[in-house]
Amino acid sequence: VNAEILTIGDELMRGEIVDSNKARLAERLLSLDLETRFQTSVGDDPEDIADAFRRAAGRSRVVLVSGGLGPTRDDITVEVLARSFGRELVLHEPSLEGIRAFFARFGRTMAANNEKQAWFPEGAEVLPNPVGTAPGCMLEQGESLFFCMPGVPRELELMMDEQVLPRLGARLGRRGVVRAMLLRTFGVGESTLDEMLRDVAKDGDVVLGFRTAFPDNYVRPVARGASAEEAEAKLARVCQAIRERLGPIIYGSGDETLEEVVGRLLREHGLSVAVAESCTGGLLAERISSVPGASDYFRGGVVAYANAAKTALLGVPEALLREHGAVSEAVARAMAEAVRERFGTDLAVATTGISGPGGGSAEKPVGLVWVALAREAGSQARDFVFPFDRPRHRLVTSQLALDWLRRLLLGEEPIAPRYLERPRPPGGGEGR
Amino acid sequence: VNAEILTIGDELMRGEIVDSNKARLAERLLSLDLETRFQTSVGDDPEDIADAFRRAAGRSRVVLVSGGLGPTRDDITVEVLARSFGRELVLHEPSLEGIRAFFARFGRTMAANNEKQAWFPEGAEVLPNPVGTAPGCMLEQGESLFFCMPGVPRELELMMDEQVLPRLGARLGRRGVVRAMLLRTFGVGESTLDEMLRDVAKDGDVVLGFRTAFPDNYVRPVARGASAEEAEAKLARVCQAIRERLGPIIYGSGDETLEEVVGRLLREHGLSVAVAESCTGGLLAERISSVPGASDYFRGGVVAYANAAKTALLGVPEALLREHGAVSEAVARAMAEAVRERFGTDLAVATTGISGPGGGSAEKPVGLVWVALAREAGSQARDFVFPFDRPRHRLVTSQLALDWLRRLLLGEEPIAPRYLERPRPPGGGEGR
Repeated sequence: VNAEILTIGDELMRGEIVDSNKARLAERLLSLDLETRFQTSVGDDPEDIADAFRRAAGRSRVVLVSGGLGPTRDDITVEVLARSFGRELVLHEPSLEGIRAFFARFGRTMAANNEKQAWFPEGAEVLPNPVGTAPGCMLEQGESLFFCMPGVPRELELMMDEQVLPRLGARLGRRGVVRAMLLRTFGVGESTLDEMLRDVAKDGDVVLGFRTAFPDNYVRPVARGASAEEAEAKLARVCQAIRERLGPIIYGSGDETLEEVVGRLLREHGLSVAVAESCTGGLLAERISSVPGASDYFRGGVVAYANAAKTALLGVPEALLREHGAVSEAVARAMAEAVRERFGTDLAVATTGISGPGGGSAEKPVGLVWVALAREAGSQARDFVFPFDRPRHRLVTSQLALDWLRRLLLGEEPIAPRYLERPRPPGGGEGR
Repeated sequence: VNAEILTIGDELMRGEIVDSNKARLAERLLSLDLETRFQTSVGDDPEDIADAFRRAAGRSRVVLVSGGLGPTRDDITVEVLARSFGRELVLHEPSLEGIRAFFARFGRTMAANNEKQAWFPEGAEVLPNPVGTAPGCMLEQGESLFFCMPGVPRELELMMDEQVLPRLGARLGRRGVVRAMLLRTFGVGESTLDEMLRDVAKDGDVVLGFRTAFPDNYVRPVARGASAEEAEAKLARVCQAIRERLGPIIYGSGDETLEEVVGRLLREHGLSVAVAESCTGGLLAERISSVPGASDYFRGGVVAYANAAKTALLGVPEALLREHGAVSEAVARAMAEAVRERFGTDLAVATTGISGPGGGSAEKPVGLVWVALAREAGSQARDFVFPFDRPRHRLVTSQLALDWLRRLLLGEEPIAPRYLERPRPPGGGEGR
């Protein structure tokens, strides 16, 4: 079964936006064990769109189309779809009502050009769009199934998940069922993960995928079975085996971010946290507070970027800064202890380091970072040296601090110092 | 002149990575006034790649290919290119030496499979890759010019800028020269910008493009001339006209971010800044400190997320919080004044608001934000109500605070309160 993806829009042709919809759709097709074979983009040109439709009909069973469903003159996807296959456009009354209602909800009147969005090719099945005005449609043309969806990512994802995948799953039911899970890890390289899991998933019906999303690495087991139950059972088994092998290296699954995991654990334990940041400059506070409801456990932080601020705001003794320097175990611990006391929290973390590009020395190179954790029982600090650039030094440092909190809350040891410092091989040499 | 882009790799077909290379290449083609007409991606399948090559040769004068130049068995782009057009592969000795030297630089020995990267189709011109092991090539096939480049973004960009664009420019020299500039604005909607600039660029050789990158809007004038001098002069004229019309709504140009502009102005004025954040939760500090060298003007900040922290760390009187609430003019100003005093800076900004999704009331809805600015002469605060979601409320609030700093340093009025609050039409309805 061939699947292909077609995205439409002049803004793609001009490189004004990065087309993330193709990856979104391709990844979701995998859940039905469908691998995309072709991906095409064309501009808002009727000839080019029609040509792409006809070529797709000749070679692919499944054709996912995104973009060009809006109300403006440029949006011609549905019209061209009808014309390409010699079909009339017919008015879909429920869609027209839906679009009117959508505007009414926001206290506005439907513009005349929005009516266009309620016309579909004869024989098409309309796919509702509860979060926008552009409904989609499914059209069977010869051997091919066309699905037209909006280009707005949020609308596209919802329509793909709730309308397209169930219909596709039913049509291709004979193929068996596939279930997948994304396991999120931090602190171990992709090749090490691959080695650690070498003898997991030897069953041909289970495949492991790997993906890097700095500073994390993801493992994605995909299991296939004759039924949903069988696929789910296989997936549960392989996930269990992976979890046994990797232990706390896995910090979460699915969409859950590390800051969400830490927030959940803090809430479960009824503990509060504050942060003191030098090199991360506010990133750690920003990540913790980005989670809705974070005020339940996050009290705040101090960004003590200048040394004087470390003394004035956190009471780090000037003598300590003179003797050890700002990037040192002593200062990191003093920052964490002070911020914990000032905010009156159960836990506190602190970061101090040299993010670069300037500021490094032979003794304290760019990439050196100290992370400290304070609790009632006292404080500890750990150091790392990273081979990255300024933004990645900041990001991985905030990740280390969060991961240490997570491991503490789980009763696990923090990840071994210097574990992460091994430089990766030089970037070159790979085609992609 | 048709231009098309072809990217190659199984990871694209599986949606494992978002293909940003197409936008990278398409945007660069615009500098030669070439708009892409087709964009295609296929997996590492020799038949599919060959098919894509032959189709491109039949319809496009310029074909940019990215990916599949690596040393592994999957990397077959060059081999298939040769075979598709009946050409032999020949060894390019200088490339082989270059690859050996690349490994030697990192103290490693070239693996046998890297030799493959030095073979090219007969008649191709090799394009050097100073930052990786995979050289590219240019092949003229009938009417078409193929350029094969690596998929690693950094290598791709360098090869495109230094090898491909000059060759293309020379070949297509008869087309004239195009120059473009990105002007970054904040605080005015795209349609308002469009109206404000209606009678600018009426000359057919100058075109205005618009692009939204929340919370900013960009204007991109593109000018064409018979020579580089003529194009540059036209571009300078239209930029001048746009700047006269928009004034301080334009905060910068090219790649310069608002935090970079503010940092540059602070350094020029020899002034320092600190921040007090509630609703932005560290984002403002993070943005200011993300700029290399920020320690010259940024002293730090307090993330006073909990009310108790506003009192303990910033000395905001409890009575003030009780009387006005945390999201109020009085508290915003008290925060800005206190953080300025504690960090001993010339300037300070503060944010307090209700980012949502929870925490709103009839009187103080989700999206309400107060931003305050303190200097020696005293403090001021302004309020806004935004119709967005939590992450965008935080982002636009940090942008407002930075923009106020910028305007202060330029001697301009801050952007009018509530100027931004007009709700945009509901997200739906646009196909893309």
